[in-house]
Amino acid sequence: MDYVAGIDLGGTKIYSALADLDGNILCESKVPTESWRGYEGVVERMAAAIRDLQREARLVHHGRLLAVGVGAPGPLDSNTGVVYQAPNLGWRDVPLGKNLESLLATPVFVENDANLGALGEHAFGAGRGSRDMVYVTVSTGIGGGLILDGHLYRGAGMGAGEIGHMTVLSDGPRCRCGNKGCLEAVASGTAIARRARREAGAGTAPVILELAGGDPGKITAVTVAEAASRGDERALDILTGAARFIGIGLANLVNLLNPSVIVLGGGVMESGRLFWQVMDEEMRERALERACQTVRLVPTALGPRVGVVGAIALALQRARDGQD
Amino acid sequence: MDYVAGIDLGGTKIYSALADLDGNILCESKVPTESWRGYEGVVERMAAAIRDLQREARLVHHGRLLAVGVGAPGPLDSNTGVVYQAPNLGWRDVPLGKNLESLLATPVFVENDANLGALGEHAFGAGRGSRDMVYVTVSTGIGGGLILDGHLYRGAGMGAGEIGHMTVLSDGPRCRCGNKGCLEAVASGTAIARRARREAGAGTAPVILELAGGDPGKITAVTVAEAASRGDERALDILTGAARFIGIGLANLVNLLNPSVIVLGGGVMESGRLFWQVMDEEMRERALERACQTVRLVPTALGPRVGVVGAIALALQRARDGQD
Repeated sequence: MDYVAGIDLGGTKIYSALADLDGNILCESKVPTESWRGYEGVVERMAAAIRDLQREARLVHHGRLLAVGVGAPGPLDSNTGVVYQAPNLGWRDVPLGKNLESLLATPVFVENDANLGALGEHAFGAGRGSRDMVYVTVSTGIGGGLILDGHLYRGAGMGAGEIGHMTVLSDGPRCRCGNKGCLEAVASGTAIARRARREAGAGTAPVILELAGGDPGKITAVTVAEAASRGDERALDILTGAARFIGIGLANLVNLLNPSVIVLGGGVMESGRLFWQVMDEEMRERALERACQTVRLVPTALGPRVGVVGAIALALQRARDGQD
Repeated sequence: MDYVAGIDLGGTKIYSALADLDGNILCESKVPTESWRGYEGVVERMAAAIRDLQREARLVHHGRLLAVGVGAPGPLDSNTGVVYQAPNLGWRDVPLGKNLESLLATPVFVENDANLGALGEHAFGAGRGSRDMVYVTVSTGIGGGLILDGHLYRGAGMGAGEIGHMTVLSDGPRCRCGNKGCLEAVASGTAIARRARREAGAGTAPVILELAGGDPGKITAVTVAEAASRGDERALDILTGAARFIGIGLANLVNLLNPSVIVLGGGVMESGRLFWQVMDEEMRERALERACQTVRLVPTALGPRVGVVGAIALALQRARDGQD
């Protein structure tokens, strides 16, 4: 039986899976990344993870591994498989695709996380059957991927989909990208935690502070969501502010790209029903009526598996392209 | 000889042209729209304009008119040729494509102005040879069209490209679309004139007021550009503010779509070198470095002919599709 593999490479774990040519997962595994081993060590761990799965599924001498999809963080060139920068892993300009290809003796295709999220949700998740879909993930950062006219849209320099760096507040707080008032700088998990810590430090968010055991440094976006679920006004206020900005970002996407579906994932999207409601209302208040009528906002169907499923979707696509 | 036709339908004039299958214009004409004749009267004038051109080019009994492209204002369905709304002309839900088709006995393809601008610049103008191009026009309103992966991107409800309704100032002035702080509400020719009129009325823009013959109601964006060219600080300030907002809008486009070219047209883009410079700087300050390196900002190559040339590009494309 022929099959493909997907790897979601993260800073802490390597999440791998094998799938048949219909995309059904045959087996999967998570192993620690152990980034202290350095680039070559990690690439070997990735190859070993695939070999272990092949043994587990008893596929070593049966069928062919047609292609491997890999999701990696940071800017990269999906044509050459070179990862330009992966701050989590301390990598710069590494030929990940080529190196993994020689270890596995199989074509390897590398793509960035957010684009794979879009591919995964489009092929097997909440965006199935749609032609124009936007995937947005809101966690520590904010990322996105675009499926336009049925295909992943990468842009002229493979940098499309940077939804998190849309300016939504021109004189807003500085973003790590250098710009001011990016969506990521005002509505990501990091931004939510930052604001809550500042308020806790100033004594204006006692409930949030208490939930963090009295240590402002331990406050995360999850603490804020927890406080909000208990009805804390301060926490609700912070989350509502972030949800409004995400609504503005979505309205801009809707007006510009007129998608039929926007799939929303990432931890911050689990901050409760109110968060979703405020975001949806803000979007519909701002976006053009006709475009609003076309679009559905839906939560991710793949959750934490979105990366590895996206990697499999990429491998399947490339395996098919190769057979054409 | 086989040929195609293009019509740019405006509120005041019907601009038509015939072109050979390489897109070379054979002859062209402008006639008043005379919208007071009502929908059917205008459709007949459009057909008559094409017939006159056929006679002028001595093509009546020679060769075939393979297709007609029509650019119309307002939201429309390019599949059915129905114009939903054309406020300039007082039309609602009119089957323009079908009606013109029966008068000319030739396939007619209707597309909105801004999309045709994008098609025209991509096929015959400043975006020639690019794969990912954005067309932005800044005049009384702000419109746009997207060429992505080499094709016009229309979106799920044919509403993509509404660059003018991107929120760039969340609590900004009300836009005619109902939203607050749209790019169009702060940086279009209308927005520039509105601000200048207010200042002139309040006595803070004497130079602009003088250029308008002392009547604030006569101030337009052209008056402001004129005052700026004479070094008037107030006018420079108003234009710089608008240029900054356009720069923010372009940065958002660059981060989201990573195009290789942005083609800029419309009267406001002729407000002087400073306007362009401020806009370009603001964009480069805000957009991600890698995406900035990929993109060129270029002025329209087609100017006021962009609509009719775009209509011809559409007709040529459809004529080719029909022959496949």
